[in-house]
Amino acid sequence: MAKPAKTPRPRAETPKGFRDYFGTEVTERAEMLQKIAGVYHRYGFDALESSAVETLDALGKYLPDVDRPEGGVFAWQDEDKNYLALRYDLTAPLARVYAQHRNELPTPYRRYAMGPVWRNEKPGPGRFRQFYQCDADTVGTASMAADAEICAMLADCLEEVGIPRGDYVVRVNNRKVLNGVLDVVAPEVPFPKENDRMGSVRAAFSKVDREGVLRTIDKFDKVGAIGVRELLTKGRKDASGAFIDGIGLAIEQAERVVRFLTARGNTAEATLENLQAAVGDSAIGLEGISELREIATLLAAQGYGPDRIVIDPSVVRGLGYYTGPVFEAELTFEILDEKGRPRQFGSVAGGGRYDDLVARFTREQVPAVGVSIGVDRLLAALREKGRTGGEARGPVVVTVMDRTRMAEYQAMVGELRQAGIRAEVYLGNPKNFGNQMKYADRRGSPVAVIAGEDEFAREVVQVKDLILGAQIAQDATLEEWKDRPSQYEVELIRDDPPRKYEPLVDKVREILAGHG
Amino acid sequence: MAKPAKTPRPRAETPKGFRDYFGTEVTERAEMLQKIAGVYHRYGFDALESSAVETLDALGKYLPDVDRPEGGVFAWQDEDKNYLALRYDLTAPLARVYAQHRNELPTPYRRYAMGPVWRNEKPGPGRFRQFYQCDADTVGTASMAADAEICAMLADCLEEVGIPRGDYVVRVNNRKVLNGVLDVVAPEVPFPKENDRMGSVRAAFSKVDREGVLRTIDKFDKVGAIGVRELLTKGRKDASGAFIDGIGLAIEQAERVVRFLTARGNTAEATLENLQAAVGDSAIGLEGISELREIATLLAAQGYGPDRIVIDPSVVRGLGYYTGPVFEAELTFEILDEKGRPRQFGSVAGGGRYDDLVARFTREQVPAVGVSIGVDRLLAALREKGRTGGEARGPVVVTVMDRTRMAEYQAMVGELRQAGIRAEVYLGNPKNFGNQMKYADRRGSPVAVIAGEDEFAREVVQVKDLILGAQIAQDATLEEWKDRPSQYEVELIRDDPPRKYEPLVDKVREILAGHG
Repeated sequence: MAKPAKTPRPRAETPKGFRDYFGTEVTERAEMLQKIAGVYHRYGFDALESSAVETLDALGKYLPDVDRPEGGVFAWQDEDKNYLALRYDLTAPLARVYAQHRNELPTPYRRYAMGPVWRNEKPGPGRFRQFYQCDADTVGTASMAADAEICAMLADCLEEVGIPRGDYVVRVNNRKVLNGVLDVVAPEVPFPKENDRMGSVRAAFSKVDREGVLRTIDKFDKVGAIGVRELLTKGRKDASGAFIDGIGLAIEQAERVVRFLTARGNTAEATLENLQAAVGDSAIGLEGISELREIATLLAAQGYGPDRIVIDPSVVRGLGYYTGPVFEAELTFEILDEKGRPRQFGSVAGGGRYDDLVARFTREQVPAVGVSIGVDRLLAALREKGRTGGEARGPVVVTVMDRTRMAEYQAMVGELRQAGIRAEVYLGNPKNFGNQMKYADRRGSPVAVIAGEDEFAREVVQVKDLILGAQIAQDATLEEWKDRPSQYEVELIRDDPPRKYEPLVDKVREILAGHG
Repeated sequence: MAKPAKTPRPRAETPKGFRDYFGTEVTERAEMLQKIAGVYHRYGFDALESSAVETLDALGKYLPDVDRPEGGVFAWQDEDKNYLALRYDLTAPLARVYAQHRNELPTPYRRYAMGPVWRNEKPGPGRFRQFYQCDADTVGTASMAADAEICAMLADCLEEVGIPRGDYVVRVNNRKVLNGVLDVVAPEVPFPKENDRMGSVRAAFSKVDREGVLRTIDKFDKVGAIGVRELLTKGRKDASGAFIDGIGLAIEQAERVVRFLTARGNTAEATLENLQAAVGDSAIGLEGISELREIATLLAAQGYGPDRIVIDPSVVRGLGYYTGPVFEAELTFEILDEKGRPRQFGSVAGGGRYDDLVARFTREQVPAVGVSIGVDRLLAALREKGRTGGEARGPVVVTVMDRTRMAEYQAMVGELRQAGIRAEVYLGNPKNFGNQMKYADRRGSPVAVIAGEDEFAREVVQVKDLILGAQIAQDATLEEWKDRPSQYEVELIRDDPPRKYEPLVDKVREILAGHG
C-alpha cells in the first residue's frame, strides 16, 4: 500500500507573547499567593473563582464595527454567533458575578480572587499576554472602614510574604481632594469633549481643561514638581529637546495643583492641613480630606502608623480611574537598574474606591473598594531580596548500577519517600554511570545513593553528599579533602527486613539537615 | 444638553457551559491540589505551568476547511491570521513544551501540571466547558519502573487527600496483552478503513474487525462478559429492545477475548497465568505479560500489595488510546445514586503509557507514561466521605452599635486578626441591629462581638457564641437555657492600653476551641 503523505510538522512554540513556567517559577508563585490568600481569609474575604471566559458584552469591551472585536481582549464567536472573550482583569468579572448573584451574596461582599488574565496587546520585554492578578474587593459599602481595612490588609500581605516593615510603604491619596483643587482652580463646569457639538462654546464655560490637568498630574512621578508646573502653564522642553505645549493655566492656578501634589507633611495632621489650604472651601475637597482623616484615625486605632501607611497626595497613579481614596504600595529598598544605577524598587500593588462597578448591569450605584497586587512584580521583589525558597532542592537520586536490581532500588526510594524525602530512581539508560551523575547535577540533587554488585553482596550502600562534594571539588586543599569525606558507606540492617533501609534513610536525613 | 441615549444593559450571566466557584468550592479544591502536588514533588516530579493558549497547530486539532476551526476547542485567529486555541487538556501542551525545551530539560523528564482546561462541547448536567485537570507524566523512558512509580504515586495521592486504604484500588492492565489476544484471534493484518480503496479486499486479509473488537470491549463495564460475548459474535438486544449487530467472530475467538477480560485471579501470579493462556505464543502478548509482571514485582518491593494496586485485565478504559500499561484508580465504597440505589463511586483517575507523544513535532519516538486525576470527581468523593473541611468557618463579626466608635471596633478586629482569628467589622448600614445578626448568620459566623454606649462606659464587651446560641434556640429546655449561657460579658484591661483587648481575644479563642 502507498505510504500516506507526511503531514507538515507543527512548530513546537508558545504563541507570541505567551510563555511557560517551570519548577520553582510555579511553586514560588503558588506559595506567595497562598500566603496572601491566608491574610485575605483572615480579614473575612471569601474566595471567588469566576470562569476565565465571559461574554464580551459582560466584559464591557467594544463590539466590532466590522466582524472582529477589538480592544485588547482575545475574543471569538460561539455557536450562536455571540462573542465570548478571555477576561482581561478580575474586576470586570466581579461586577458580573455580583450583579448575577447579588441576592445570594452577603452585603457587603468581601471577596478575593487570584488567577491568570489575558490581554490581546503587543507583547514586549517582560510584558506577556497572560499573567496573574491577585485582587481583594469589598462591594456594597461606602464606609471608609472598608478602605482602611484594605490598606491594613495590604501591609499585612507584604509582611506575610516576606517584605519586612520599613522596606515598604502604603501611600493613600483621594481623588475627591484633587477634584476640590480643580474646583478652586476652575469652578466645575462640564468640559465638552472635542467631538462634542458644544465644543465651540468651550471657552465660555471654562478656561481649564480638567482632563489635561489629570494627564499632566500623571507625569508627576517622571517630571517632578517643576516639570508639572511648566506643563500646567507655558509648556517645557522634554529630555529629547522637543517642546511639549503647556495647558495654559495661570501661575497661581498651577501653583495650587502643585501644592496639592506636594502636600505631604511630617504628620498626617500636617498633610491634611496642607490639603485644606489647597482646596479652600470646596465641598468635595473637604469631603475628600475628611475621608482621609477617617482612614488615618481608623488605621491608628489598629496600630498602623506612618511607618506602614501614610497619607501622601503625591500618589497620582489611578487618580483618573478611582472616585475616592486611592492607594499604592511601594517597595522602598534600592535595586540596581539595567545600567547599574541604584533606584527604588517601586510599586507592587494599587487600588482604590470606584462606585460604579455594577451599574452597567443593574443601573444601581454600588459602592466598592479594592486592591490588586502585581503578582509578577512582587515575586521579582522577593527574589531580589532572597525571600523566596530560591533554587528548590532537587530529589535524592538512587542510581542504577545493575538493571536486574531495579526492585531493590525501588524499595530504597520508596523508603526515602515514606520518610518525606524527595527522591527518585534514575530511569534513563543506566549503562553510563557518568550520565547518571550528570543527571543528578542537572536536577540539583543533594545526595546520590549508589549500590552495585559489591554493595549488594555486603548489604551496604554508598551515600554521596553531592553538595559537599561540589564544594570540595571547587576549593578544598588536599588535607581538607581527606578530612571531609563526601561519601559514606552505610550498613543496612540484615535480620529485620522491614527495618532494612533505616540506616540509609537516617544517613540521607542527616546529610540534608547539614545543608539546612 | 440632551441626555445621551442609554446603551442597552448587558446581561449578568456566565456564558453557557461555564460557572463560578465560591468560597469553600475554591479553597477545598486548592487544598486537595496542594496535597497532590506535595506527593508529586516528593516523587521527584517538577511543576510545569504552560500557557493556557496554544497555537491550534501545536494542539493538533483539525484546521478548518471553511473559515472556523472545529473539533472541540475554543479557537480564534490572531493578528497574523494564525489560529490560537485554549488547551483542551494538559498532555498536548506537555508534548509541545517537551519538543520546544528538550535540550534544557532533564531526561527522563518528570513533570506535574494542574489547572483549567477548556472544551468547546455541548454542556450538560455536571459537564462544564471549563474544568480542572491534574496530571503527572514521565517523558523519555521506556522503563516499567516509571509505570510502577506512577501507580504507587497515585495510591499515595489518594491516601494523602483522605481516601483511606481499602476504599480505593488502582487496577493495571496492558494494551499489549490485548494485542496478543487479537493476534491469536486474528493474525495481524492491516485492517483497511471503510473509506479506503482497498476496502473491497478486506475479506481477503482478515475476518476480524480489530477496531470493532476494541469498541466492543469498551462496553464491558456496561454489558458484562455475557454481553461482550454476544456482541463479539451474533449480536444482542439492548435494554431498549433494539437489536445491536454482532461483529461476527467465531465462538472460540470471542471466548478468548472474554477470557482476557476475566483473567483476574486471586493473586497476581494467577492472573498472569490466565493471561498467558489467553495470548498463547503471541510475542507482543508475552511482552505485555512480562511488563505487568515487572510492574507487580517493583510494586511489591516497595510494599504496594494488592490491597492497593492489582493487575486486572477487566480495565478497559483507555485500552484504545494507550500503547502499553493502562491503569485506573477506582473508589470502592458505595454511594447512593440519584434513585437511592447503592453503587460504587467508581473511577477518579486514569493513565497509561503512550509512546508517540512528541513525534508529531520532532519525528522522534519518545516513550512516556502518565496519569490524570479527575479533580472534580475526586473532590466530590471527598465531600461524600466528609473528608473536606466542610463548611468553612465564617469570620467573627464585630457588630457596630455606635457609628462614632468605628475606630474602637476596628481596634478589636485588628487584635483578633493579629491573633490569627478570622474576623471582620460589620460594614453595612448599622442602623438595624437585626440586620447585623442576619448578616452574621449568612456568613456562618461562630461569634459576634457587641459593644454599645453602656459597654464602652463600663469598658466591657459582650461576646456571643452564635453556634451554641443556635443549638439552644433549636432544642434546649428552659433549664439548659439557663445553665448554658451563650453570651458572655468580658472585662477589658483598663490600665495597660496595649493589652486592653487581650481578654476579648482569649474569650473568642476559647469559644472557637470549644467548637473544634
